[in-house]
Amino acid sequence: LLGILGGMGPQAGLDQAARIIAMTPAQSDQDHLPFVLFSMPGEIADRTAFLRGEAADNPAFAIAGQLQKMAALGVTVVVMACNTAHAPPIFDVVLEQLRERRVNIRMLHLVDETVAFILREHPCLTRIGVLATPGAYRTNLYTDALAVAGLEAIVPDEEVREQLLHAAVYDPGFGIKATPGAVSHEARQRVHAAVLNLREHGAEAVVLGCTELPLAIEEHSIEGIPILDPARIIAERLTCMLGAE
Amino acid sequence: LLGILGGMGPQAGLDQAARIIAMTPAQSDQDHLPFVLFSMPGEIADRTAFLRGEAADNPAFAIAGQLQKMAALGVTVVVMACNTAHAPPIFDVVLEQLRERRVNIRMLHLVDETVAFILREHPCLTRIGVLATPGAYRTNLYTDALAVAGLEAIVPDEEVREQLLHAAVYDPGFGIKATPGAVSHEARQRVHAAVLNLREHGAEAVVLGCTELPLAIEEHSIEGIPILDPARIIAERLTCMLGAE
Repeated sequence: LLGILGGMGPQAGLDQAARIIAMTPAQSDQDHLPFVLFSMPGEIADRTAFLRGEAADNPAFAIAGQLQKMAALGVTVVVMACNTAHAPPIFDVVLEQLRERRVNIRMLHLVDETVAFILREHPCLTRIGVLATPGAYRTNLYTDALAVAGLEAIVPDEEVREQLLHAAVYDPGFGIKATPGAVSHEARQRVHAAVLNLREHGAEAVVLGCTELPLAIEEHSIEGIPILDPARIIAERLTCMLGAE
Repeated sequence: LLGILGGMGPQAGLDQAARIIAMTPAQSDQDHLPFVLFSMPGEIADRTAFLRGEAADNPAFAIAGQLQKMAALGVTVVVMACNTAHAPPIFDVVLEQLRERRVNIRMLHLVDETVAFILREHPCLTRIGVLATPGAYRTNLYTDALAVAGLEAIVPDEEVREQLLHAAVYDPGFGIKATPGAVSHEARQRVHAAVLNLREHGAEAVVLGCTELPLAIEEHSIEGIPILDPARIIAERLTCMLGAE
């Protein structure tokens, strides 16, 4: 049984589930992969605020608590629908908590799976643009994982991070987290501008390294640059992995 | 904690969750209503096949088993994202099973909530068109609930039911259940034609009485006829009910 840990934000959790359903070859309801989706956002503090040092509570403890409940339901494989939650200061504590609580569950890693996908499907690319939250940049989440694979991460400068990306995701008026059902034109424009900025800096592909971003960009490529969506990559991996069982 | 019993089909479960998220006034992840969504379609036999007498197993037992697991997680209110599962031969057995298993959970009723909405929001209408599955028609699911409220149900004749509706939902090639991620033009056309057929028979509004149908019709009205989506109606009800707690 697959578990999707959503709520970070709620729409991103649904989006992850939708991608899995869309990729499953099925003729009837009964052919689809079974999953449970947890969306209890009030329990899980903002990941970026913690990584920036603006909030003291590590969301890892609430995440581990929800994973423990999933395991009790029979869940054996989990994907967390939030890139930033994979930053080591959070993810490592989640794994440690699972060991301490003796929770036997396999965690798919959104970032590592994305890097593996790039090596497999785009073997000639070397400079990978990364759009992410300030929390992910601060912890070098994608930068480190790409470096291990011999790839260079192209990240935007501070101004683009704050004015375009952080605002597009978090602004209480037009941000994607504030209007998840109907992403604003303003948010779309800023994410689009951030992609073009990375292209100018030499990116040969761009990873949407925050689960909110694919809600604002549906294109598979922009001006010749492939747009890589970790939620889609993990959906493909899961349908292979669990479909073959 | 809200429970959404999905998987009937999987996309309809996500759609129900998406409508709740879209209707919740929120500025951050943490403002959203907590919910768990179960999508284990392999366990729950087809509702229409059972009601038509083509399958012996009542899906009510598997449904009750999943609701029991939800209750153990702390779920107190549930909506089943499937109109047909509310037909008395299934729904009454679910309630009976919950009593027997001493599961204390409140079941929102998609059909009764829809009829209440019509009385409240469209008090001048008297003839309500109903698009549904053969299983729902056979058990007079909407017809009886509308009659209790003094409203007349307009239902399509046998040919429209089979050629347009059943095919649009269940056809293994172009049916909505077979291609949930991207509804086919063929399925859209048939649902649309069924709406027009009900209009010709005097319907003043049309209820999309199968959770698959709103995936094929996004319009709020067609040629002046209001299109009523039970998933949207229940989402509004839930956000009021749980948001006010």
